[in-house]
Amino acid sequence: LRQLNFADRLSTLVGERRSQIVLGLDPDPLRLLPQAAEAAGSGSAAERAARAVAEHCRALVAAAAPACVAVKLQLACFERLGAAGRVALGLAADSAHAAGLLVIADGKRGDVPHTAVAYGQSLVGETPTPWGSVAGLGADAVTANPLLGRDALEPLVDAARAGGAGVFVLVRSSNPGAAAIQDVDSGGVPWHERLAALVRELGAGGIGTAGLSDTGAVVAATEPDRLARLRELMPQAVFLLPGIGAQGGRVEDLRPAFAPGPAAALVTASRSLVDPALAAGDPSAAWAAAEALREAAWELAA
Amino acid sequence: LRQLNFADRLSTLVGERRSQIVLGLDPDPLRLLPQAAEAAGSGSAAERAARAVAEHCRALVAAAAPACVAVKLQLACFERLGAAGRVALGLAADSAHAAGLLVIADGKRGDVPHTAVAYGQSLVGETPTPWGSVAGLGADAVTANPLLGRDALEPLVDAARAGGAGVFVLVRSSNPGAAAIQDVDSGGVPWHERLAALVRELGAGGIGTAGLSDTGAVVAATEPDRLARLRELMPQAVFLLPGIGAQGGRVEDLRPAFAPGPAAALVTASRSLVDPALAAGDPSAAWAAAEALREAAWELAA
Repeated sequence: LRQLNFADRLSTLVGERRSQIVLGLDPDPLRLLPQAAEAAGSGSAAERAARAVAEHCRALVAAAAPACVAVKLQLACFERLGAAGRVALGLAADSAHAAGLLVIADGKRGDVPHTAVAYGQSLVGETPTPWGSVAGLGADAVTANPLLGRDALEPLVDAARAGGAGVFVLVRSSNPGAAAIQDVDSGGVPWHERLAALVRELGAGGIGTAGLSDTGAVVAATEPDRLARLRELMPQAVFLLPGIGAQGGRVEDLRPAFAPGPAAALVTASRSLVDPALAAGDPSAAWAAAEALREAAWELAA
Repeated sequence: LRQLNFADRLSTLVGERRSQIVLGLDPDPLRLLPQAAEAAGSGSAAERAARAVAEHCRALVAAAAPACVAVKLQLACFERLGAAGRVALGLAADSAHAAGLLVIADGKRGDVPHTAVAYGQSLVGETPTPWGSVAGLGADAVTANPLLGRDALEPLVDAARAGGAGVFVLVRSSNPGAAAIQDVDSGGVPWHERLAALVRELGAGGIGTAGLSDTGAVVAATEPDRLARLRELMPQAVFLLPGIGAQGGRVEDLRPAFAPGPAAALVTASRSLVDPALAAGDPSAAWAAAEALREAAWELAA
């Protein structure tokens, strides 16, 4: 399965699960499900927090999976728990795979080519050592930061492609401060359209049989006109769409993202799915929120 | 000491050590000092590689420290060894601190504000949990990616500032692909000058008694004219300068970076310091290479 093009794997899974919903997990040790605290066990604060975080993720994934196609793991939230956090990250990825979901490692990595190779090994590949290879996280896709340019993205795209994984390159983020940097006028077009062109170029070598590329784009779901324009510039890229719910984006406005087909866009939601579960003390509330989103997106894409 | 402004801490240390040299460590398990392999011990490939990497870093730091003021740890190279790699990262930071050096965590992190808080906790702060606080890496400074804009950098700058640490914001990288993205014309000036303006704004709240800010900039050392222009735009920022040696930059061309004073710029070198040690099978060769660079930079800055 891992030999297949990522976009083809995604297309199949979206069709089977009738879902484009990505459960975003950015676990905060102070805001966990009640059952997670019980799993903390003994040991250092980091070890206990990491075990609780792993159980929190497992329970949410198990509950919400029927409405989802993937999970997005926010690497920062695991990294802050040190080595124990890395163990929890692996367990969260395992939980997602066990539930039939794809794993998107959200670290927005971006560095010079030599370092980009190491990030590829870490997330979608393996690291050769004199004592044998060290397996990476085994993510199905990663998010990447394109600020350093094409030569810095290529090693990550190549590593992902070699393993049937995908890369979502940040093109336009959903935070309020994005505009002042990403939308600057550059020869009559917003600067971020340069990033869109780069995504299209990088993706040309990874078009699957379903007509979509293994190199996609992170695009804020918060402005419908921009979404249409970026779809025009990147007709074969899968869009990963943050910004629905908590950040003000509306599912109804996502239609242009789905123009190439039902697997052409993924709707990622974190707080708007997890907060109801925390409020209810019950992970099944995350499923209910995801299911409502799934129905809305599926209808839109049909 | 950690309560002081980062730029003041740096200024004192640069004066004491008469050095602006940063030893860059991006350890590859296939290219380690002979003594490192002996430290691998037993266990999984990841555990053995991580122990070897930690010893490699320790030996290089111990040997080269007299010519340096800081080490730069490339997070990707530790991250790819999983949980064991995170242990090795902590040990490498400990080695640097034990040798009297500052630790720069080079991860070029950058994400939406909510996530930037987590990166701050991970690298320069601590994470509160119901089981007590989990200490972060304890870095003295971090590198950051500004693509997401001001609101995404602020939590990282705030976290660093609260702990007497610093942030080096990427303004112009040294890789060949940088130009097509970072130098795009934007209203008559290269786009990356927007990033320089952002660094200046963010740094205004963190000027120390030495007149330098705790918020600095990563600027490629590969083009002297650009260096002078960026110094003009960021008169109080400490420049972290990659690109000397292996990437073609020359120390003699760095003069504009040092204009505000001897602690106004740090010269970071990785392969050009470590490769001689690997070739000789002796970490003291890294000292010799660092010492030659130290003399050249110190003379220039005097």
